[in-house]
Amino acid sequence: MKALEEKILKDGQVRPGHILKVDSFLNHQMDIGFINEIGKEFKRLFADKPINKILTVEASGIGIACITAQYFNAPVVFAKKAQSLNLDGSLYTAKVQSYTHNRVYDVILSKKFLGPDDHVLIIDDFLANGCAVTGLLEIIEAAGATLEGVGIVIEKGFQNGGKDLRAQGVDLKSLAIIRSMTDTTIEFEEQDD
Amino acid sequence: MKALEEKILKDGQVRPGHILKVDSFLNHQMDIGFINEIGKEFKRLFADKPINKILTVEASGIGIACITAQYFNAPVVFAKKAQSLNLDGSLYTAKVQSYTHNRVYDVILSKKFLGPDDHVLIIDDFLANGCAVTGLLEIIEAAGATLEGVGIVIEKGFQNGGKDLRAQGVDLKSLAIIRSMTDTTIEFEEQDD
Repeated sequence: MKALEEKILKDGQVRPGHILKVDSFLNHQMDIGFINEIGKEFKRLFADKPINKILTVEASGIGIACITAQYFNAPVVFAKKAQSLNLDGSLYTAKVQSYTHNRVYDVILSKKFLGPDDHVLIIDDFLANGCAVTGLLEIIEAAGATLEGVGIVIEKGFQNGGKDLRAQGVDLKSLAIIRSMTDTTIEFEEQDD
Repeated sequence: MKALEEKILKDGQVRPGHILKVDSFLNHQMDIGFINEIGKEFKRLFADKPINKILTVEASGIGIACITAQYFNAPVVFAKKAQSLNLDGSLYTAKVQSYTHNRVYDVILSKKFLGPDDHVLIIDDFLANGCAVTGLLEIIEAAGATLEGVGIVIEKGFQNGGKDLRAQGVDLKSLAIIRSMTDTTIEFEEQDD
């Protein structure tokens, strides 16, 4: 998505440890008009799939998933981090390693909201090692639901998450794939359309 | 908002400890069509205010804030819980007591995204003791921004948050105010329009 690459080059900042900050428009402050363009693009990319549920994980995926869900006329379900007093005992759980925070946490999802009739599109802001998506895939499998695809805003192509998921046959579409980045340059993988 | 009261009566579940679960449509699974109706109602209620930023706190406020922000043509900024390696050193912080989780946490917001030119509408899913909103008010004050109002989906009117905020002169609008609830009944405060 050309407009996204341009936005990353204009507003993104590279920090030590291969951290790309896009917090001015994507995951701290959110440019809702631009995120609508992202949602439309996900719809275009997955238009032929019978998607009836959008799945993400808190926190920064939620807003993108909600805006995107409008184009699919589907509800969002977001997995929560760690046990909450407010949740049922009847939960799917998976362990996720956070690259950014350098720790392992549990994600949980109420069994009421995912089952064999669901055709799921996973949406998230970033894909690096792919641990969050892998956790969600475990939950989809435990629910007997069907994974229709994974839509990522920014993939760090120099880490293994995307490669591993595609090798598993997952229909993964990333709107921008970063091939390499240094303190002063960001290079993207060329993509069709 | 009549449709919201009806939805709470139909799909909400009361749990011990005055916990109201609305996780089938509001804060775990999210009914995006219905949340659009909520967003439109917030716009109607705050139509006369010069709002240029929607502020919320992760996680369950984010999706509601993003959908609502579309009706204001404004960006969303969400305060984050606890320190993240990904955030700048340059932060506003406030302490928040969580009623649901029974603990104190820090919320943080990058100084880049809130300043004296901002006219802020706070959006959140629940208001009980008002601690999350109070934390956001501290951040707004520290930023020198102007609070235009607070929009809450469900207020627990039998707790003190709403009363305290209104006593401070805050323009607080809650789409449903629960006067009382037991295991089998939920009663709402009557509201104008």
